[in-house]
This record gives sequence, C-alpha cells and structure tokens, in this order.
Amino acid sequence: MISQRVMELESEGKKIIKMNVGDPDQPTPREIIEAAVEAMKQGKTKYSFYAGEKALREKLANIHNVSTENVVIIPGSKWAIFSIIYLLLKNGGNVIIPTPYWTAYALSAKDLGAETRFLRTDIESNWKIDTEKLRDLIDRKTRLIIVNNPNNPTSKVIETDVFKEIVEIANDNNVPILSDEVYHDLSFVKTKSILDFSGNHILINSFSKTFAMTGWRIGYVVMGEELAGKMVKLNQLTFTNVPVFIQDAALKALELKQKIADEIREIYRQRADSAYKVLSKTGLRFTKPDAPFYFFPKYVNLDSEKFAFDLLEKGVAVTPGTAFGDYREYFRIALTLPEEEIKLGLEKICEALE
Amino acid sequence: MISQRVMELESEGKKIIKMNVGDPDQPTPREIIEAAVEAMKQGKTKYSFYAGEKALREKLANIHNVSTENVVIIPGSKWAIFSIIYLLLKNGGNVIIPTPYWTAYALSAKDLGAETRFLRTDIESNWKIDTEKLRDLIDRKTRLIIVNNPNNPTSKVIETDVFKEIVEIANDNNVPILSDEVYHDLSFVKTKSILDFSGNHILINSFSKTFAMTGWRIGYVVMGEELAGKMVKLNQLTFTNVPVFIQDAALKALELKQKIADEIREIYRQRADSAYKVLSKTGLRFTKPDAPFYFFPKYVNLDSEKFAFDLLEKGVAVTPGTAFGDYREYFRIALTLPEEEIKLGLEKICEALE
Repeated sequence: MISQRVMELESEGKKIIKMNVGDPDQPTPREIIEAAVEAMKQGKTKYSFYAGEKALREKLANIHNVSTENVVIIPGSKWAIFSIIYLLLKNGGNVIIPTPYWTAYALSAKDLGAETRFLRTDIESNWKIDTEKLRDLIDRKTRLIIVNNPNNPTSKVIETDVFKEIVEIANDNNVPILSDEVYHDLSFVKTKSILDFSGNHILINSFSKTFAMTGWRIGYVVMGEELAGKMVKLNQLTFTNVPVFIQDAALKALELKQKIADEIREIYRQRADSAYKVLSKTGLRFTKPDAPFYFFPKYVNLDSEKFAFDLLEKGVAVTPGTAFGDYREYFRIALTLPEEEIKLGLEKICEALE
Repeated sequence: MISQRVMELESEGKKIIKMNVGDPDQPTPREIIEAAVEAMKQGKTKYSFYAGEKALREKLANIHNVSTENVVIIPGSKWAIFSIIYLLLKNGGNVIIPTPYWTAYALSAKDLGAETRFLRTDIESNWKIDTEKLRDLIDRKTRLIIVNNPNNPTSKVIETDVFKEIVEIANDNNVPILSDEVYHDLSFVKTKSILDFSGNHILINSFSKTFAMTGWRIGYVVMGEELAGKMVKLNQLTFTNVPVFIQDAALKALELKQKIADEIREIYRQRADSAYKVLSKTGLRFTKPDAPFYFFPKYVNLDSEKFAFDLLEKGVAVTPGTAFGDYREYFRIALTLPEEEIKLGLEKICEALE
C-alpha cells in the first residue's frame, strides 16, 4: 500500500508531496470550530438521539425537500456505505458498482460477503455508464446499485439523461440506488442529485469535503422511512450518536454553506485549471474534471503500481489506478495540497513520464 | 420502550426524573474540554490513523502493560461489542452471555445472526456465575464468552476465584473472553481485570463513565495483535478514525485519571450508600453495589414492565428487568442524577411499592 510506504518514509524524516489523499489542505472554517466549542461549553457532551439532533435533521430535510424522518446523521459517508450494504445484503444478493469506483464500496461489499458486479466505464467513452450493460447486469438477486456523482477518482458528473436512464432501470427492477454525492456541493458544473428523480433511492452526503471537515466524521443519509428506521437501530447498536457538539458544528456549517462551499469550490476550480494546463503538455490522457479534487489520467502501457512506488521514492505520492478497479494504466492525482506543492508534484510527475 | 415514552412525556412539557439512563449528570471536566478545543485550534481536524493516535495508544498500553499494537481506539465500547461479534461470529457459532446482561450484547448478537447462550445468575446466589454451568454451555461452536465486570445492571464485581475459573474454562476450550470493564475504574471494591489473567482475551473500556464523557463516543479495546489487525481494517471500512481532537481530550483525561476518577467514584459511593439506606426500608431485595451506577432490586411477583410504565406516569423512569434478560420481577435504578432528584425518585419508587 502506498499510504503505508508514505508513513515509513515520513517517519524517516523524508518530505513527501502527498497527492494521494482526498483530505483538503484548508483548515475547518473558524465559525464551525467555534460552534463546536460553544456546544461543548454548554454541556452538549451527553448521549443523544440515535438518528441525530432534530435541528440538524430538520435543516437537512429542508435543504433536500424531504421529511425529518428521512434523514439520519452518521459518522461519515463511509459508515453509510458499510451499513447500507449490511442492511440490504446481509441475507445475500449482489450489488452493482460502476468502475472506476471509490475503494470503500468494493472493500465493504467484500467484507460483508456481498457479491459485487462491476460495470466498467472507460476514458475512451468519456466515463459514460453504459445503461444497456447495466440492464444486463441486474438480476433478481440485485439488491443495490451504487453510483458516485461526481465520481472519485474521475471527477466526472453523470450526464442528466444517463442518470435518468439509470434511475428508470433501477425503478423497473425495484432496486434501490445508493448515490454517493459527497463532491456534489463543490461540483464545477450543474449536477443532478438522486433526489431529483422519482423512486425509493438513497442519498449519502458528508460534511468532509464541502466544509473541510474530514476529521470530524460526520455525514448523513436521506432515504425511505423503513430503511431509515433500520439504520437508526443499527446506530443504536454501534456508535450510539455522533457527538452533539459535532452536530452543532455541522449545523453551523450548513448555515454558512453558500459562502464556504463557494470559496472552496473556487480554490479547487483554479487548481484544476492549472493542473489541466500542465498535464496537457504530457502524453497523459484524461478528462477535464467536473468537480474537485482529482485527475485520473491514463498512460498507455503504464504499470501504475510500479510507477507510484517509483514516484514515491522521488518524493511524490499518487494512488495507482488498481485501487479503483481494473485500471492498471491509470493513476489518481489529488489536488488537496497548497498550490506550491501541487506545482512541484506535477513537475515531478511530468519528469517521471518523460 | 420506556425511553420513547419518556421522550413523549417530556415533549408534552412533563418533568421526568430519569433513573433509566447510565449517563452521569456530572459535566465533562473542564480540562478535558480545553484539550479538545486546543486540538481543534491546532488544526487536528483531518483524517488520521485507523487504529487511533499513537500517543493515546501508547498511554493506554502503558496503563495496561501491553504493546501499542494491542490497543485500538474506537467510538465507544458498544462499537467494540458489535465489531468483535461481527469479526468472530460472522461465519456462525455461539456466544455465551451471563444474565442479567447489558442489553447491547444480546441485541448485537441477534442482529449479527449469532446464536446466544445465556448463563443465568440470580440474586439468591449473590449473582455468582456458576462455572459448572458455563462449562456445560461451551461446545466446539462457541466463539466468545462475554463478561461484564463490574456488571450492569447488578453493579456486582466478579469474585477473583470465580473470574479465575471462568478464564481457565475459556482457556481450556480455546475460547476468547470479551471482558467489558467500563465501570472498572470507578469500582468501590478491588476489581480484577481480564488482563490480570493469562490467555488471549479481550478487554473493552470506555472514557464515558470514568470521565463523564458519554457523548464524546470514545473507548478502546486491548486484544491480541491478530484480532487488533482485523479491527483496524474494520475501522477503515466504517468510521475511519475517532476525531483526533476527541482523542487528544481522552489523552488529557488519562493524565488526570486519578483525580477525576476518585472524585466521581466518591460521589457515586455516597449516592449508593444513601440509596441503600432508603431502599432497605422497602420490601425490595437487592445486593449492595460494588460499583456505580445501578441498583437492580427484585420485588416478588412484580410485573416490571407494568410497574415501570405506571411509575413513569408518576414522573419517575426506571428500566424494567426484562431489558436485561428474563428478569420480570426486577427493575434497574440508575443514580446518575443530582442528589435532590435521586431522593425524590426513590421516594416515589417506595410509594409505588407500598
């Protein structure tokens, strides 16, 4: 694993330019921290509701135009992925996952013993999901379809007509879609949410990316009441509740959402533009990102694991494409670093490809 | 459920004396909150190690005389129960649980499809675990034995010779013991830890009770390296890491442990003494608590669910014995309220029994 080697090198005192982690370099905005501090001082350090605080759920329900009962607060979107696969597939069945995928989908499915069916997309077809193939993959044991919009690692947004078709196929087959939309609020282009379509589907979102709150571990799920009830029961058995002072911080984040998201989006749009220019001069093939934080370039005949480990010895960490499925010729670059470091990192990547 | 009815009554503006929740009324000590605030301001709001922060793990390893690799930080002890049953019993098998038990053991086992084998203890034999019965219950499909020392709801500590026998039986059968010791540091009497015995067993502990940190959601597990490795992988798939600023707060708590635990223990010892005197004047049968926070009295021929709901309409919430197994004639009283409220609550309980 690249991340382990990074830690080894860092513990030896080496400076690594870490373009391998989707953790924004921006600090959590001051107002959000202050809301947490205020809540702690008010004694909001006790057990609370398994579903989350009412004020936060109501605010999210308003944003998404659903009922409070449809919203459940969780310790990060990853928890949603694990728990929904647990709840929907523990008695067997398969889950359909387009590739390249965020690693957690496949790892959780595997850990929970769920059969995974991968639906490959390629740069050659602009990462478009082939809905005919999706239809073929579904059978009566399909319990879930996962989409990631915008996508990690490609930073592509699903086109509205394709998304519509995916939803229709899911509805025809009575299969819920889990739509992971953690990059949605930072998207550079107009981006549909699963909640814009009909059907009994599942939205997951997080405060991590939109508000630079990765380490706070808070996200939420919007879903039908029956599934929400099951998730609340699972919360009861596992983590009890996200600390109330963290939920208060998240509520403050939502109040400042426009301002904070606009600022962060603009930073990443500029970074993406700069990186696009630099990478365009190389033999890499890639699509223009629709959203933060990633590029997922292809280099014909690349052995991306070897490439990533060699590059790491030169001081730059990227993620090999194999972390996202069968993408040996690809690697992922995260622009979650100060501009200076990004510039240096991209230079070293370009050198390594010469 | 009593807790739901409590919420209903409270939302109607009724004042309920809540003797049904093990959430201490003390605020989290100021120094602990300050440590969290300081960490937040230092920017410790990013993703971090799945196993927990090194400094906190090292401190706990020192306390328990184990290696850092044996310690994993988790979001509360309940997570440990769920995840250890998940890791050890997902391919089937049974778990042995003495009764009365803390509700989460049975709920998690059931949710995960594990077979539960209950080992009844009674007030008539001073809640002593019958080790011969334990031996009979174990078979080659037994994957885990859970003990809770001190016990919730009885507040009894397992006698050293009995604990020793339990461990010997477990070792003879190569079955790990999960020892839930969340009340250990507040125990009124000398209390053995599972780590005082030989064998490859599992300790779980939490910061919730010892430091009045219930809502912070932080606990830890001490276990063999192989299981620790599996748990770290599960952390990676689920909650990622407990927020680093919360881990910093926990580290501060450990630095002040002697002082804080002594203070909290003394408060609960006094409360237990007072309650003991009051309850002794009733027809209730109970044992003297070895630890905070609970009394688990028996009243012959009581229908504890009816009793609890009737009592709730009079403004006092207790937990019916049926929440802890087949204990219909029992109920649990938690002394986690200001002295004034405890006094009032006990008076109403006494009245209700007249």
